[in-house]
Amino acid sequence: MTEFGFIETIRATFASIPDNAFEGIGDDCAILPTDGDEALVFTSDALCEGVHFLRESSTPFDIGAKSATVNLSDIAAMGARPIATLLSLALPQEAVGEWAEEFIRGYHSVSSRYGVKLVGGDTTGSKTGVFVSVTAIGRVKRANIKRRSSAKPGDTILVGGVLGESAIGLSDILSGNPHSAAAQLHRNPVAQIEEGEWLGTQECVHAMMDISDGLSSDLQHILTASHVGAIIDTEKIPAANADVRNAVCGGEDYKLLFTVATDCVTDLIATFERRFGYTPYPIGTITADSDCHIEWRENGRRVSHTDWQGFTHF
Amino acid sequence: MTEFGFIETIRATFASIPDNAFEGIGDDCAILPTDGDEALVFTSDALCEGVHFLRESSTPFDIGAKSATVNLSDIAAMGARPIATLLSLALPQEAVGEWAEEFIRGYHSVSSRYGVKLVGGDTTGSKTGVFVSVTAIGRVKRANIKRRSSAKPGDTILVGGVLGESAIGLSDILSGNPHSAAAQLHRNPVAQIEEGEWLGTQECVHAMMDISDGLSSDLQHILTASHVGAIIDTEKIPAANADVRNAVCGGEDYKLLFTVATDCVTDLIATFERRFGYTPYPIGTITADSDCHIEWRENGRRVSHTDWQGFTHF
Repeated sequence: MTEFGFIETIRATFASIPDNAFEGIGDDCAILPTDGDEALVFTSDALCEGVHFLRESSTPFDIGAKSATVNLSDIAAMGARPIATLLSLALPQEAVGEWAEEFIRGYHSVSSRYGVKLVGGDTTGSKTGVFVSVTAIGRVKRANIKRRSSAKPGDTILVGGVLGESAIGLSDILSGNPHSAAAQLHRNPVAQIEEGEWLGTQECVHAMMDISDGLSSDLQHILTASHVGAIIDTEKIPAANADVRNAVCGGEDYKLLFTVATDCVTDLIATFERRFGYTPYPIGTITADSDCHIEWRENGRRVSHTDWQGFTHF
Repeated sequence: MTEFGFIETIRATFASIPDNAFEGIGDDCAILPTDGDEALVFTSDALCEGVHFLRESSTPFDIGAKSATVNLSDIAAMGARPIATLLSLALPQEAVGEWAEEFIRGYHSVSSRYGVKLVGGDTTGSKTGVFVSVTAIGRVKRANIKRRSSAKPGDTILVGGVLGESAIGLSDILSGNPHSAAAQLHRNPVAQIEEGEWLGTQECVHAMMDISDGLSSDLQHILTASHVGAIIDTEKIPAANADVRNAVCGGEDYKLLFTVATDCVTDLIATFERRFGYTPYPIGTITADSDCHIEWRENGRRVSHTDWQGFTHF
């Protein structure tokens, strides 16, 4: 069974329970409309020792910071502003005390940067490794919510920054080079939190999500949800170390992936640059393909990359 | 460092970040006021293999059901109605597939009973044991919210049902008698969800919480938060197997503990009984004691029980 197969099982099992006003179940976040024109959005992400981090190669500060980052990234990917988190932490005996306090300092460093309050949670012992689960809550004007399902044929596809650095960092760590810049970015990634909230306010931005499992895998989610296809110009992908395969398949970059009405792309990129000091990268176009296929092109020539799969945690 | 010491560290670390309109941080749930007279409440609870359950002595169905129950119990203890949960699940390879599907059936059985939608979450692999973290969301009229801090001198203290069964069940399991009724209740406890929501609507109910760590420990939370003391008549405690020490110190009963203005206790008990078919138990009185001390009495005589401590997961 794959992760997505299991999620389908869960969805089918819960189909008979009323939605209680929630929308967007299956997107980066679940959405609960509240006052007037506002909504709250919710997401949960878990980090598991041995799967998402190694205690021997990451500091507790970095693990705490990353636990906050990956969750705030999902909030921002909806166009929302993160306002609060709840933190569940299972700690083996040797991690209680100094390790846990340093974890909290890292968690706080990211939370305070974006003004996100820790409002609840649970701490417990663990007989095995460290487990972290975070629920993040965001607030957004309903009109600004960006869903995976809103990509339109003709849209330009953009990514918010360089891809593949996290995967290079992981392979640096595994090959005994834990002090490289990429390794540090893998352990403590920077998400595009303010960028996501701002892109939410831009009407010409249609679909958005963050890239956590790899461009190939995450773009496919947008295509499937929007019932469209895509052409990607591989030479335009901002690939770390010019390694395109790694940029497409590597996970945990936490850069935004979004589609924009083509006639306002130039303006959007210019305004984004004035605001944030750098530009996002146009890498392709949404197509009217109900098979939801990604067509990879290299300098205009169609190329086949059937082995370009995303990162999986199972 | 104790669990509560660590929570204090977290609170101090995050004190400088604005509350973003959240209240009640440190109660059973965090509170976010929304439309007009409403609020949302949030809680997270984690269950960890080897600490909260053993895979060899609990079915995946029971573990799934209990994961939902303990979280919905915290929502109900605020006087709120649970509306949604997010579920994070870390699964070792051998639990992917049948085990996980049976877990979801158990989780669904409790969720559907109370009409609670699963709106999000995360599934991931685990290199060690099963780890479950649930965030539950509840909805409540702001006037109906019951806090730990609202107990008043003179209030009668009530518990919602028999205490100590879960602890007896755990010791049955550990001594090779896993099929007793108490053992089944330990594995798959029943929380007072509808009772909590209804008690929320009763103005004469002042403070409320659920008993998860034991009467002794949880009553102390109410006293400390309310700056009051308590006299408990130990002979009135509804103790399973007439074992009062076990009833006071055992954890995981998930019965409600609440304080009621004394002049309406009789009416409240009668109305509760008509509605739910059984009665809660008055066990003592809130006192004006700023040392927040619990005075134990046995048939009117003061007795000392300095060793009556609650259950701890560290």
